[in-house]
Amino acid sequence: MSTTEPLLYERVAGLVAGQISSGALRVSERIPSVRSMSRAARVSVSTVVQAYAHLESQGLIEARPQSGYFVRARTRERLPEPPSRQVRSTRPRGVAADVLDACREAIQRTDLVQLNMACAPAESSPNRRLNTLIRDELREHPNHAGEIILPPGDFELRRQVARRAVLAGAATDPDDVVITGGTMDAVTLSLGVLCKSGETILVESPTYFGVLQAVEHLGLKVIEVPNHPGRGIDVDAVRSAVGGQRLAAAVLMPNFNNPCGSLTPTEAKREIVSVLTAARVPIIEDDLYGELHFGPNRPDSLRRFDTEELVIACGSVSKTIALGYRVGWAITPAWALDIQRAKFFTSVAAPTLQQRVLARYFASGGYDRFLTGLRRMLAGSAERFLDAIASAFPSGTCVARPAGGMVLWVRLPPGIDSMELFRAALECRIGIMPGIVFSAKAGFRNYIRLNYGCGWSADVAAAIATLGRLAHRMAASHR
Amino acid sequence: MSTTEPLLYERVAGLVAGQISSGALRVSERIPSVRSMSRAARVSVSTVVQAYAHLESQGLIEARPQSGYFVRARTRERLPEPPSRQVRSTRPRGVAADVLDACREAIQRTDLVQLNMACAPAESSPNRRLNTLIRDELREHPNHAGEIILPPGDFELRRQVARRAVLAGAATDPDDVVITGGTMDAVTLSLGVLCKSGETILVESPTYFGVLQAVEHLGLKVIEVPNHPGRGIDVDAVRSAVGGQRLAAAVLMPNFNNPCGSLTPTEAKREIVSVLTAARVPIIEDDLYGELHFGPNRPDSLRRFDTEELVIACGSVSKTIALGYRVGWAITPAWALDIQRAKFFTSVAAPTLQQRVLARYFASGGYDRFLTGLRRMLAGSAERFLDAIASAFPSGTCVARPAGGMVLWVRLPPGIDSMELFRAALECRIGIMPGIVFSAKAGFRNYIRLNYGCGWSADVAAAIATLGRLAHRMAASHR
Repeated sequence: MSTTEPLLYERVAGLVAGQISSGALRVSERIPSVRSMSRAARVSVSTVVQAYAHLESQGLIEARPQSGYFVRARTRERLPEPPSRQVRSTRPRGVAADVLDACREAIQRTDLVQLNMACAPAESSPNRRLNTLIRDELREHPNHAGEIILPPGDFELRRQVARRAVLAGAATDPDDVVITGGTMDAVTLSLGVLCKSGETILVESPTYFGVLQAVEHLGLKVIEVPNHPGRGIDVDAVRSAVGGQRLAAAVLMPNFNNPCGSLTPTEAKREIVSVLTAARVPIIEDDLYGELHFGPNRPDSLRRFDTEELVIACGSVSKTIALGYRVGWAITPAWALDIQRAKFFTSVAAPTLQQRVLARYFASGGYDRFLTGLRRMLAGSAERFLDAIASAFPSGTCVARPAGGMVLWVRLPPGIDSMELFRAALECRIGIMPGIVFSAKAGFRNYIRLNYGCGWSADVAAAIATLGRLAHRMAASHR
Repeated sequence: MSTTEPLLYERVAGLVAGQISSGALRVSERIPSVRSMSRAARVSVSTVVQAYAHLESQGLIEARPQSGYFVRARTRERLPEPPSRQVRSTRPRGVAADVLDACREAIQRTDLVQLNMACAPAESSPNRRLNTLIRDELREHPNHAGEIILPPGDFELRRQVARRAVLAGAATDPDDVVITGGTMDAVTLSLGVLCKSGETILVESPTYFGVLQAVEHLGLKVIEVPNHPGRGIDVDAVRSAVGGQRLAAAVLMPNFNNPCGSLTPTEAKREIVSVLTAARVPIIEDDLYGELHFGPNRPDSLRRFDTEELVIACGSVSKTIALGYRVGWAITPAWALDIQRAKFFTSVAAPTLQQRVLARYFASGGYDRFLTGLRRMLAGSAERFLDAIASAFPSGTCVARPAGGMVLWVRLPPGIDSMELFRAALECRIGIMPGIVFSAKAGFRNYIRLNYGCGWSADVAAAIATLGRLAHRMAASHR
């Protein structure tokens, strides 16, 4: 059971958002004044002000001077979501290394509008607070350089991670938490513990390209099941994949799939865990984005439905406050010891200073407040991106509406090669991620992934307009 | 070619040490006064003072008040070095997991005299300087938490690593350096790039237990060639191993093998590289201890003799200044790109702050000065340990005389089970490392590894005496 209740202001915002989406409130209609809403909803004036600010940041309403709040005009009808694909493959080398190298190189360029990463701007981290904690730590442990915290990692950090894991629906013992060098390190270590070279694992399609590459590095094969934009992991496909062959593990991202931003619903999660448990298939859950939900509650981890200790939940703070810290975790009662061993023997430990600083940060209590602000920024930015893409891109474009996270999955009209768009965009100093890297089958050739984590700005608006022009030109040349 | 010349004081110290080891100067004989040596060697008085201090720290001479310097009395004749073993194995699971878990647990205990680690005390790192650099870095890059430095890593750090690599005998391009999460991370990534599951790699016997476990994690098999205490890697054994089967790679530690502290001589290094090159076997060189030489010069990396770009040299600052930073590197022209990819896809990046702080530290120039002091401490500590073991341990004990590094490889009289000694020592709050973990064949049952990196102290003296008593008792019970 998820233990967080929506805050008052979120409830009020939800009321208004519901009226808009149901059509009860139409574009340009005035919404109730702050005072009248305060009376109607029996909440304080300041709560309503907060709720309306939230709706404004999400692009749903706008303030007009001296007139109050109005439902915001959408630049055009919402674009349809792209269809999902049934893609299957056991080919281990699905994506060309040169494509991945080009993407990796673009990520490192500092002269681009970076719509290719999946991250918020470095300025948006709670830097002042974190740096104060580092200075505190230098005073308290001046010899930290020579001190190592071996796996399972700093106890206070594990305790804090366990404490927060309850918000994702599962009671957690600190002894079941192993600190790693980030989420991907946790995923890779888990794969190493669970799988032997040559075995097959289940992944989503699309899925994060790093997972596919780590799988290839370990000599594993994959079978892909669709993740439907807007609906999440395809339960029937999981069922038939399990029936078809022996699977050594599944790597799943039910909370805000990267790249398509979908949230797999609670009932589907329950069913997926049940199907995989019946077949004794361990599940590595990549829950990197789980705390970046646009809905009122943090979505559940698959661990909530895990009756047989078959789920390893992997997470970190890389997408929220500290991409550069390289600290994450794996939560698992069954394989905690194996993952400790694997971490110790393959790369020894996570950095000492960051383990302790994160423990301090979690203990100091500002994280939830910070996350509330970050989620609001992301939700608002997603709306702006969706509107701008709807205006700028050629007809036939589809966009998956994200339920959380920080990326948009865009299907361009058939015939447009996203690698061509990738290269043309680089010429204009815009970074995007081509769709083909998100599947071992090398599908998604006319898809791109865009990072809205960067927030909305004039540069970003210009970049989207430029991408739209480039896409128009390519669409025309293919007619 | 090694480019460092011995410093003046080292030359003077070498003169005196040579006289002692040749017998020209005997125990308790007075050595030349500072003034007369200054005249004889045509160096300044202060250089001689520095040389004598160095010899004193190595335990070779002692100052007697008002009388000058004398050759120090050794408590007894030097113990013989243990013989090497010809051990071969392709069994992947040679060391029981419970033994390794017990060792790992002991390493994490803070209530022990830690002769089980291989590290210097945290206080001996240049902590004040490093912490100042961290504070500088916080001012200059206050948003570092949200910034990531993807592989190959921070350019200035790679430049500094390349610059220092020349001291190990090979010109190095910064583009051939990939920053990793420590030396073991570099070794594991290299193994992943070079080897497929089921293939066989060459390792030394004894060798660092972490290498054997990483190899097992990756599903590889090993063949072991002896590393002779005092003489290093057995060239003939390498030659015959290469002739016997296909090897996917070799993991070698020619500079101060862990655990036996041996330095493989220059000619043997050249021959090993030549033999492996002829068979096209890539070499992963674990050069973690290369800068902790007791001789005047930093020993060469195998890269000096590498004509075909088959060597990957792995290193870090973990054994010198910053065990807790988790930053290391792999140097390789041939596989730099593959290792970059593997790092990015399996664990993304090394921590941002530590990459930049290390680059600053290297650039600031204090590292060599620091290393000189650390080496002096280690060499002196090794002498004290050797003397104390000779006094305290039962007859039949052998000790490998280390040429550098921070560990001693001790062979106990036959019949003593080092796991029994390990457990008895833990009862007395002393941590030691049992020999069986240093070979996949589970040999070395009557060997232990002791860390003299901790330096000499009353606690350490008492611990060695206790270990001696325990070993005497066990030896007696086996007669």
